[in-house]
Amino acid sequence: MDKESLEEILKNVSAGSTSVEDAVKTLMHIHIEDIDYAHIDHHRSLRKGFPEVIFGEGKTAGQIAGIMEKMAAQEEIILVTRADKEKAESVLSRFSGAVYYEEARMIVLKKKDISVQGRGKILVLSAGTSDIPVAREAYITAQAMGNDVDSVFDVGVAGIHRLFNHKKMIDDASVLIVVAGMEGALPSVVAGMVSRPVIAVPTSVGYGVSLGGLTALFAMLNSCSSNVAVVNIDNGFGAGYMAAMINRV
Amino acid sequence: MDKESLEEILKNVSAGSTSVEDAVKTLMHIHIEDIDYAHIDHHRSLRKGFPEVIFGEGKTAGQIAGIMEKMAAQEEIILVTRADKEKAESVLSRFSGAVYYEEARMIVLKKKDISVQGRGKILVLSAGTSDIPVAREAYITAQAMGNDVDSVFDVGVAGIHRLFNHKKMIDDASVLIVVAGMEGALPSVVAGMVSRPVIAVPTSVGYGVSLGGLTALFAMLNSCSSNVAVVNIDNGFGAGYMAAMINRV
Amino acid sequence: MDKESLEEILKNVSAGSTSVEDAVKTLMHIHIEDIDYAHIDHHRSLRKGFPEVIFGEGKTAGQIAGIMEKMAAQEEIILVTRADKEKAESVLSRFSGAVYYEEARMIVLKKKDISVQGRGKILVLSAGTSDIPVAREAYITAQAMGNDVDSVFDVGVAGIHRLFNHKKMIDDASVLIVVAGMEGALPSVVAGMVSRPVIAVPTSVGYGVSLGGLTALFAMLNSCSSNVAVVNIDNGFGAGYMAAMINRV
Amino acid sequence: MDKESLEEILKNVSAGSTSVEDAVKTLMHIHIEDIDYAHIDHHRSLRKGFPEVIFGEGKTAGQIAGIMEKMAAQEEIILVTRADKEKAESVLSRFSGAVYYEEARMIVLKKKDISVQGRGKILVLSAGTSDIPVAREAYITAQAMGNDVDSVFDVGVAGIHRLFNHKKMIDDASVLIVVAGMEGALPSVVAGMVSRPVIAVPTSVGYGVSLGGLTALFAMLNSCSSNVAVVNIDNGFGAGYMAAMINRV
Amino acid sequence: MDKESLEEILKNVSAGSTSVEDAVKTLMHIHIEDIDYAHIDHHRSLRKGFPEVIFGEGKTAGQIAGIMEKMAAQEEIILVTRADKEKAESVLSRFSGAVYYEEARMIVLKKKDISVQGRGKILVLSAGTSDIPVAREAYITAQAMGNDVDSVFDVGVAGIHRLFNHKKMIDDASVLIVVAGMEGALPSVVAGMVSRPVIAVPTSVGYGVSLGGLTALFAMLNSCSSNVAVVNIDNGFGAGYMAAMINRV
Amino acid sequence: MDKESLEEILKNVSAGSTSVEDAVKTLMHIHIEDIDYAHIDHHRSLRKGFPEVIFGEGKTAGQIAGIMEKMAAQEEIILVTRADKEKAESVLSRFSGAVYYEEARMIVLKKKDISVQGRGKILVLSAGTSDIPVAREAYITAQAMGNDVDSVFDVGVAGIHRLFNHKKMIDDASVLIVVAGMEGALPSVVAGMVSRPVIAVPTSVGYGVSLGGLTALFAMLNSCSSNVAVVNIDNGFGAGYMAAMINRV
Amino acid sequence: MDKESLEEILKNVSAGSTSVEDAVKTLMHIHIEDIDYAHIDHHRSLRKGFPEVIFGEGKTAGQIAGIMEKMAAQEEIILVTRADKEKAESVLSRFSGAVYYEEARMIVLKKKDISVQGRGKILVLSAGTSDIPVAREAYITAQAMGNDVDSVFDVGVAGIHRLFNHKKMIDDASVLIVVAGMEGALPSVVAGMVSRPVIAVPTSVGYGVSLGGLTALFAMLNSCSSNVAVVNIDNGFGAGYMAAMINRV
Amino acid sequence: MDKESLEEILKNVSAGSTSVEDAVKTLMHIHIEDIDYAHIDHHRSLRKGFPEVIFGEGKTAGQIAGIMEKMAAQEEIILVTRADKEKAESVLSRFSGAVYYEEARMIVLKKKDISVQGRGKILVLSAGTSDIPVAREAYITAQAMGNDVDSVFDVGVAGIHRLFNHKKMIDDASVLIVVAGMEGALPSVVAGMVSRPVIAVPTSVGYGVSLGGLTALFAMLNSCSSNVAVVNIDNGFGAGYMAAMINRV
Repeated sequence: MDKESLEEILKNVSAGSTSVEDAVKTLMHIHIEDIDYAHIDHHRSLRKGFPEVIFGEGKTAGQIAGIMEKMAAQEEIILVTRADKEKAESVLSRFSGAVYYEEARMIVLKKKDISVQGRGKILVLSAGTSDIPVAREAYITAQAMGNDVDSVFDVGVAGIHRLFNHKKMIDDASVLIVVAGMEGALPSVVAGMVSRPVIAVPTSVGYGVSLGGLTALFAMLNSCSSNVAVVNIDNGFGAGYMAAMINRV
Repeated sequence: MDKESLEEILKNVSAGSTSVEDAVKTLMHIHIEDIDYAHIDHHRSLRKGFPEVIFGEGKTAGQIAGIMEKMAAQEEIILVTRADKEKAESVLSRFSGAVYYEEARMIVLKKKDISVQGRGKILVLSAGTSDIPVAREAYITAQAMGNDVDSVFDVGVAGIHRLFNHKKMIDDASVLIVVAGMEGALPSVVAGMVSRPVIAVPTSVGYGVSLGGLTALFAMLNSCSSNVAVVNIDNGFGAGYMAAMINRV
Repeated sequence: MDKESLEEILKNVSAGSTSVEDAVKTLMHIHIEDIDYAHIDHHRSLRKGFPEVIFGEGKTAGQIAGIMEKMAAQEEIILVTRADKEKAESVLSRFSGAVYYEEARMIVLKKKDISVQGRGKILVLSAGTSDIPVAREAYITAQAMGNDVDSVFDVGVAGIHRLFNHKKMIDDASVLIVVAGMEGALPSVVAGMVSRPVIAVPTSVGYGVSLGGLTALFAMLNSCSSNVAVVNIDNGFGAGYMAAMINRV
Repeated sequence: MDKESLEEILKNVSAGSTSVEDAVKTLMHIHIEDIDYAHIDHHRSLRKGFPEVIFGEGKTAGQIAGIMEKMAAQEEIILVTRADKEKAESVLSRFSGAVYYEEARMIVLKKKDISVQGRGKILVLSAGTSDIPVAREAYITAQAMGNDVDSVFDVGVAGIHRLFNHKKMIDDASVLIVVAGMEGALPSVVAGMVSRPVIAVPTSVGYGVSLGGLTALFAMLNSCSSNVAVVNIDNGFGAGYMAAMINRV
Repeated sequence: MDKESLEEILKNVSAGSTSVEDAVKTLMHIHIEDIDYAHIDHHRSLRKGFPEVIFGEGKTAGQIAGIMEKMAAQEEIILVTRADKEKAESVLSRFSGAVYYEEARMIVLKKKDISVQGRGKILVLSAGTSDIPVAREAYITAQAMGNDVDSVFDVGVAGIHRLFNHKKMIDDASVLIVVAGMEGALPSVVAGMVSRPVIAVPTSVGYGVSLGGLTALFAMLNSCSSNVAVVNIDNGFGAGYMAAMINRV
Repeated sequence: MDKESLEEILKNVSAGSTSVEDAVKTLMHIHIEDIDYAHIDHHRSLRKGFPEVIFGEGKTAGQIAGIMEKMAAQEEIILVTRADKEKAESVLSRFSGAVYYEEARMIVLKKKDISVQGRGKILVLSAGTSDIPVAREAYITAQAMGNDVDSVFDVGVAGIHRLFNHKKMIDDASVLIVVAGMEGALPSVVAGMVSRPVIAVPTSVGYGVSLGGLTALFAMLNSCSSNVAVVNIDNGFGAGYMAAMINRV
Repeated sequence: MDKESLEEILKNVSAGSTSVEDAVKTLMHIHIEDIDYAHIDHHRSLRKGFPEVIFGEGKTAGQIAGIMEKMAAQEEIILVTRADKEKAESVLSRFSGAVYYEEARMIVLKKKDISVQGRGKILVLSAGTSDIPVAREAYITAQAMGNDVDSVFDVGVAGIHRLFNHKKMIDDASVLIVVAGMEGALPSVVAGMVSRPVIAVPTSVGYGVSLGGLTALFAMLNSCSSNVAVVNIDNGFGAGYMAAMINRV
Repeated sequence: MDKESLEEILKNVSAGSTSVEDAVKTLMHIHIEDIDYAHIDHHRSLRKGFPEVIFGEGKTAGQIAGIMEKMAAQEEIILVTRADKEKAESVLSRFSGAVYYEEARMIVLKKKDISVQGRGKILVLSAGTSDIPVAREAYITAQAMGNDVDSVFDVGVAGIHRLFNHKKMIDDASVLIVVAGMEGALPSVVAGMVSRPVIAVPTSVGYGVSLGGLTALFAMLNSCSSNVAVVNIDNGFGAGYMAAMINRV
């Protein structure tokens, strides 16, 4: 029920053309629609400046483009995740302004520049070379959601001194995203160095008992540092999104 | 918001003492309460003749009795599951009409007899002697919810002919609950004999690779019979509840 | 042993051409055949108006068509599940009346219309876009088995208000099938809204710790709503079949 | 090496009493101590107004009290987690100002009141009655770290309307902690209602395939809402700590 | 239906007091009982000289004794497995002829001596000291079922030469039972030395990644020797029973 | 060291041309070779009439043929398992007498007919159509090792009466191999019908929580029938080999 | 067969009192004994200066003392692992020279001082306070086997600077044992700092997804440092033993 | 900061052109760089004669060659692991001196011969034919790192006598690498024969419950021999590297 309908009923009650009894009955059945109405408003404000996201895996280029077309009318920015190169090229041929980030496997379509809305800097760190695609997905997502983002890649714990070379950048971040596969130790070490929230992202990088990322995931959940929370394996997008939420608190 | 408040507002609109504009504002904010109101009604009808259930595990006899007292004013029947003998005796000393089913570890408090509401008979079958407590929990639950219930215990697949001895009873049931631990094969065999819905209940009975009931659970979910759906390990109550729901469709 | 043979023996006994002793010997050895005979009868009635089902995965188009040919003589309706498009086209070229439901990956061959036999409506709900194929399989199966079926797709718990938009349809269903992957939360929420049996279907949709659908499966088995029973991962057919069984109780 | 020692060396170089060569040798060996020096400073500021935390499980009352005594000289506030009642009473008898929160199993010793430092309100929601101890641990931790904290307990997804009754409180929170066992569905539903960071805490509440909390954990990591990050099973303290970090970003 | 009833019917048919038609009807309904009848015979022969077995775990001494009393009338030998000392003493006080094997945790009650029925010798080997109880259970079971049984305990693969000291005994066995925990390697080594069937029994002996015997179980199932089949973890009884079956082929 | 060499040394000692001291030294170092010598003898006798087996998976047709050529000189029969059709055709083009069993994926090359050496009949039963390849592998293996083998395929527990149709064949077998995927219930049912050893073979047939055969495997290990031992998933060859061993006890 | 028996035979051959033929027969059957003979020698030398170890868990004080008494005659040193305090006190009352290390739960009985045999120093590092017992077990074992051992406890990765405070000690070690529970990250970090072999010991310290030490174990096996090998969960003894072996290479 | 910069600062202090105060400030910020500097030195010496290793899996031939080019200037030897034949040929066409070991899937590029630096011999043993590639990877790695390496392949425990044929080689090794899949029993047997450190390498060879190598891994970690430590599944390179470290202790 929209506002107009409600006014209509109340006007009728006021005018005496609808009895109080009948109006009670009618209004006893407005429930979800009203909430829904509020929800839509709320959702609209919620999404302002935030990317709508299309999960590209398992969708054809045509399906992706179709969804993008519907969204393009209303949205300032559209993100597509997990889009391989071939799909991306097909999509880009239909949206002149769209940009493809190959390493991150993301397509970004912006109608205008995204203004920075986050309080501080988000820093994305990653452990091994193979973790970079997931780290890049986090990076692009956080940036697209209106944040200053920095990154330091390839600072695994087996050469811990490399991490210290970037201590200033680490100290200056307001939110940190730490991406690691294999033994997943990096988030613990980084979180021990700062008093900022750290979003840990396990990756499926590794073999044998890396168990497709479960080992890194479990290691991160067992972190002996308390300022760590974890997202799903390879979920760079989720980490970027969560960091953006935190950076606006 | 309750019905009275709503009538009050509408009467005021009708009488002109509240403007339409103000009433719109007020009513735009009634959402959940209204739904909740409806929900309460709905819930009340939902629960008619159906037991409220107290999960006894991890609660003291005092806590159980306390909850029962609050409920006793409104409810026709109260069920307590997973109550050991000691707790039960303490509870029963405070509720003269309550009955304790030791094997099923359940306490039942009825204010009046439960009339039969189910369409047909519910039959509870179980495989091994150790599965009987779970089977009894299902039995008592289904019965307390207003169903005719029969049972055949100790008809494991290692002596398949024992099952056939009860073929008539199996054929006559409208819903079947089949309880088994270890290899969990009984539901498949039973379901292959009937064209009725079978609720399979894995139990934690077994050792070694029974894995606390996971093996029986997975076996039941893999049943080569299609008229089988499964509840959690040792969840006799859930099976009885679900069977009662089905028997009223 | 069929009825004729039995009559033959008894007639001979009656006529004195077979001694009681010899007849006892003979009849002591009729066991399975007799039962089998009964079973066949029973099975025939069981299957009336119900689909025979061919699991298409791992079978060639030729094998599928071969089985269909054998069945076509006796059966009113033939269902094939998990048939990809290529196989389906090959099969359809040989059975003029067969229909292929691409999303559900099912082939349906009906000799005549299926009359509605279920008591009420079966409602199929699904959470995400990727869950739709499994939901469609449940839908087609339940429908082919003689039920009125409705569906609401894409009502995941992350936008819970969308669910409430369909509250009337949910309230009116006699049996509900709820399909969800990832965290598998939808069946709990839906089952909390109704006092009807809910068949929960976990799907393999997700990545990382979705563990190929195990997480959704376990979540559903742990539902805090009691009117939920669960089938195997991606088993839309089983859910439709079970719902049809329930709807005829 | 502290600053004074460094100045000493450089003064000697400046004064000519130490050769450049010798100073190079000496300074080539200051490495970690220097960092450590910096770290200590950093740590001190880091810990300002933040609780030191003693994990009480597996420690005797005597050991807990011993550590508290050492800390009491320097710290404004001391937290002990996972302390059962017996231990707590023994500890409290030695620290007159200490308070024991039985449900949360925490001991808090404050020298002075903690000023509120967080930006907004932290809201702790929990699903079932058995989840409350973990939720209380999160609550006490976040509060002790200088935050306004609210809580709504017992709002499981099986009665989703109860959640909506608290919609305003949910909308007003800047950070949300959502605690749930069994199927772990509550964080997804709550996160879908807000554009704020949600810390999900799985609990070990449940039986059968709750797998000691693994099911809830995996469900939360698979959340179809993106503003969710997860901590270890039953880790209420970690959730409270992480929320406090986020609320100060 | 027993033979007498069948004769009765046929006599009536023969005498003309029952029509063929009525007899057909009646006999169409004898199914399982007939089979059951056969089964009973079959079972009786099956059990000849073989122990009935009572699983003692989870039963009280009273329950065990009760079952034994019922069985004692008909059976030559009664076995009770997994009976701890206290229960056993209570049971033995009621059955003068019963013997308790403490290490094997078994009670054996024989009415007369069991004659040897197996073709050759059964040899029970075990790896570590802690595996002996399971090995003893296999030993007592096989012996009680009428077999010559030998045993060599404590011949783990870490001192492989100890195994060779018993090579003659190994070569002379007709069936071998090999019991091992931890890495479960012994069955592979032993099976490589003989061309006889080897029953492998994993035990729950070990810690850490022994995973309660799963590691030994999986290792045995992966044996690079082909003459190995495996029973459940700690299932000494099953191994003894299976070996007895094999030794009578 | 072969017998001749040993005789040589002893003759030299006897003749005085080798001192006792030197002979002691020499013989102290014959260990493994001597054993090996015995082993070779033993192995030769062991292998008499038994197939050498080549695991074809992961080997090229060329490699398989190469090994076959080396073996062909000495062996009466050669078995190749897990050989796909393409490889088999290539191999068969080089060995005129070799036969390819496509369903079993085995190549058999016999120099002469294998005489029957087993005591009784081996019966291979299998549950579903998809289990047949594994069942055929067991069949061919047992037959090639000199046994009479029978088979009954497609007797799953969902239509238990089909099993009883073959009761005589089941009763007459001396060893039974029972092959099943999905819930793996068939071995329990069959073993309950006989007093013969049953080798259970789980297959990887199924989907969802069949877990690649783990569910069937665990179900079989948990069999409530005691005359069951189990081999690895899909290990038809091992079951056939073990059954052959048993049939010669 | 011992050397004397062999000489006896050969002397008889030499003397002509035993024919070559008979000697061949006899010697064809000495195989294992000869090897065993060698093994015994080898084992004696192997064990020189090395502790025999009694696994105390699951043994009574009486059993432990009994084994110690048998060993005391021959051995220079006796180690007992996993002995709780009560058992230890009982054992110590019977062996005046024995020492109990409570934290390590070990009893050590030395007849004389153990001389240092290792090449360099073994360093034991551990992460959390709760890991110390396992670390102490490694320490005592390595020391008892004749090594200089140092230790640094409580240097978890959440405060990585604490580790660097001990850099010299780390650099100087020839073999390192690194003990850690929870996320198990310490071995990776330490191994990245040295070019020495690191033995990683996962502990069962942690809760939730520490999975009883599996997470730490898997993390260590996935170490991005290559100079790491791993022992079983909580296996401090094994790590100390392995380090001692390495230190003597 | 390199040594020259440090000298520069100190010279300026010495010369009075930089004040002590300014120098303190500057040097307070050299921390990591200094450590890094040290680390680089340390690393350089560490790497002397040791291979830098490129993990070839997931890299293109171009990427591999690119990294090799950068390294070639500084390094004496370059190792590439997990390079398939096609990639290797492409790489070799650009580096004339490079050698490809096909079985080990490794490329080795040496500028000059590697001098032997290890103390004793490293022996690589492997169980089955399919384990050879992993064993070869260990062999090539250890050899490239300056060790004498021997190997014995195909000595599985099912024919334990084959192992004894190589007893001398086993006794003479200073470090042993034992590679096995399936039940992973070989390391236990070998370690029981020697008093030397054994590095166990599980492989993913096997099917069914080999669980991709987890079973072999767990078996090895449960070894009843104490001189065993384990690396990740299929990690031949890590085993070779660790053995080289040990051989230089």
